Amino acid sequence: MMSENVAVIGVGHSKFGTRKDVNIAELCWESMKPAFESANLEPKDIEFFVVSNAGMWSSEAAVPALMAEYADLAPKGSMRVEAACASGSAAVRVGYTAVKSGMADIVLVLGVEKMQESPNPNVIELIGRFGSYFWEFENFGLTFPAYYALHGTAYMMKYGATEEDYAKVAVKNHYYGAKNPYAQFQREIDVETVMKSPYVAWPFKLFDCSPITDGSACIILASEEKVKELGIDEKIWILGQGVGTGTANLSRREEFSSLASATYAAEQAYKMAGIDIDDPTKYLDGANVHDCFTAPEIIAYEDLRFCKRGEGYKLIREEQTYIGGKIPVNVDGGLKAKGHPIGATGVSQAVEAYKQLLQKAEPGRQADINKGRWLAHNVGGTGHYSYVTIYGLEKR
Amino acid sequence: MMSENVAVIGVGHSKFGTRKDVNIAELCWESMKPAFESANLEPKDIEFFVVSNAGMWSSEAAVPALMAEYADLAPKGSMRVEAACASGSAAVRVGYTAVKSGMADIVLVLGVEKMQESPNPNVIELIGRFGSYFWEFENFGLTFPAYYALHGTAYMMKYGATEEDYAKVAVKNHYYGAKNPYAQFQREIDVETVMKSPYVAWPFKLFDCSPITDGSACIILASEEKVKELGIDEKIWILGQGVGTGTANLSRREEFSSLASATYAAEQAYKMAGIDIDDPTKYLDGANVHDCFTAPEIIAYEDLRFCKRGEGYKLIREEQTYIGGKIPVNVDGGLKAKGHPIGATGVSQAVEAYKQLLQKAEPGRQADINKGRWLAHNVGGTGHYSYVTIYGLEKR
Repeated sequence: MMSENVAVIGVGHSKFGTRKDVNIAELCWESMKPAFESANLEPKDIEFFVVSNAGMWSSEAAVPALMAEYADLAPKGSMRVEAACASGSAAVRVGYTAVKSGMADIVLVLGVEKMQESPNPNVIELIGRFGSYFWEFENFGLTFPAYYALHGTAYMMKYGATEEDYAKVAVKNHYYGAKNPYAQFQREIDVETVMKSPYVAWPFKLFDCSPITDGSACIILASEEKVKELGIDEKIWILGQGVGTGTANLSRREEFSSLASATYAAEQAYKMAGIDIDDPTKYLDGANVHDCFTAPEIIAYEDLRFCKRGEGYKLIREEQTYIGGKIPVNVDGGLKAKGHPIGATGVSQAVEAYKQLLQKAEPGRQADINKGRWLAHNVGGTGHYSYVTIYGLEKR
Repeated sequence: MMSENVAVIGVGHSKFGTRKDVNIAELCWESMKPAFESANLEPKDIEFFVVSNAGMWSSEAAVPALMAEYADLAPKGSMRVEAACASGSAAVRVGYTAVKSGMADIVLVLGVEKMQESPNPNVIELIGRFGSYFWEFENFGLTFPAYYALHGTAYMMKYGATEEDYAKVAVKNHYYGAKNPYAQFQREIDVETVMKSPYVAWPFKLFDCSPITDGSACIILASEEKVKELGIDEKIWILGQGVGTGTANLSRREEFSSLASATYAAEQAYKMAGIDIDDPTKYLDGANVHDCFTAPEIIAYEDLRFCKRGEGYKLIREEQTYIGGKIPVNVDGGLKAKGHPIGATGVSQAVEAYKQLLQKAEPGRQADINKGRWLAHNVGGTGHYSYVTIYGLEKR
């Protein structure tokens, strides 16, 4: 039966980091097991499952079939989805529409990546192919630090942000990463740490960049009817999702101090969730945004309308995106400190929305929950794919 | 708005074969252009698009972003989906649920593969990874002809089918491929051609195997409301879809003369489409089944209940799957003669359902349309993923 409302009824999260201690199936199960436990369900209850995995650096081509066997999910249907670094949110979308359309009542969404074992060509080259393979990657040799540095420099030139402002994003995200037991980097840093780290692609230094990460995250979705039937108390709802695509070539874009696909996705998500696009922070208790580098977190503030254009760097300068500020952002450490296992990141954001809204985040990183809504902003490539999802305590 | 019924309102198909004359974007556009024309729509009308592409042999990692730019689809949202050789049907499912759930009213589904340019490791090795990478592929060196030969031999031993029976599948599919201007192989063969061709993996000879193919296929889906609004006359409807997953390792399966995931998917699809599972051929004018090798076409007859278990080989022996027989199967040439560009195959099956049901197939290969329903059976791996979709002239 079609279900207007769809809930997240269980979540799980692996430790992010260098996970040479487990194979990919074990890494998946590390997040699936707690997801089943928190939903009080077993694998046999799942009607459909979708796996997010970019996978280009992995020998394993068929994670859904692998997990069908390992976790006893066969013969239930499955597929793999990919939208570069937004793959996890694409999987959430597939799970969401599967339930909303009535094609399944209980769906498992799994995101996983094991990047530390990348063969040659190495992981940096492989990620680079998510830009324009034919032209900008292959001919100019651009990889992701350079792609985003073009945005970072454009933003600095246009609005007067400084390298120190960017560094402050890393400082905030490490501050919260230190309080997240699942984070890859659980230690605080200061502005000096960032400023003294070696340049990767100006203006980005090592500590402006998110790391290469192994990890998995898992959520279980259910229809409104099933939530009732199972008598589930602890759940959150998907209130809206927007999705946008950008041009393959950055040279085909008009603007570098924003991402057109993210702006477009945000507009759709806010509209669907009934959020006033002119003042979304009034409706949100917090957000996770795609801080693959420091500058894009600031650009995200603006694409999401947390502030006016050109004022994003002031939000971080004034510590307005810490807990207690205008809108807490990436209080799980973000991609920067929590880590960025590409296929898992969007699902990890959903796990964080669930934990924050149900006030289950670890001490020192729980935001105040008054408005009952949390936003997840997940970008693939440099805006090649953008997904914005709004989660809420109450149904639409 | 949620839409109980979803229609295919436009289709396009590239020439399948060795397509070194075009790059991947041009190959996509070759099927997208006629899809837009037949739906009388333009790229700006598309609200969401999904691309099926296995892509492991391609340098190009981001076909959705590539086509967003090339076909002017940006900033509309997109993703890539993959389920091995059933990727195309997985994309149909994502498009279908996107419309059915009300998340989009008009969705483009594109399947594409460019396999002839595969780098090292070569395409046969890469396809092999869709089995169990860790164990059966890596340790025993199984590739797909061998995986399916295990099924082919099991079936022969159990029921007494012969190599000649398998050859007859190839003869039928080449017979119809010769009448399909989009097919890779447009020439007829006889049983002797197959029997005299060199062994690849006993009992399969060269002419028992589908080829390595470049190609694309495209369909446009719309909600019931949009079909009315646009005043579309020529359309078919998705009546049901089932999906199943198998174990990664063949050694973890109980049975080799059927595919458990396909049987499971068929049951779901028939139920959803209101088709009597005990006599589905009464409801169907024809079918496309996944004949990556000849034996699996016969196994598909049985998994789909076109006949009793163990009688599939009699259907082809008695020419019951030719036009005019009990149920015409693969009258576009099937994977065997039309070709099998992995990401495109499932979408190509949808194109064929549209053409057959609207009686637009080329001379000599148009089935009689009396019952108004067509089935598509698409398998990834050896039943690692199975999708069964029922298309119809009338709504559910």
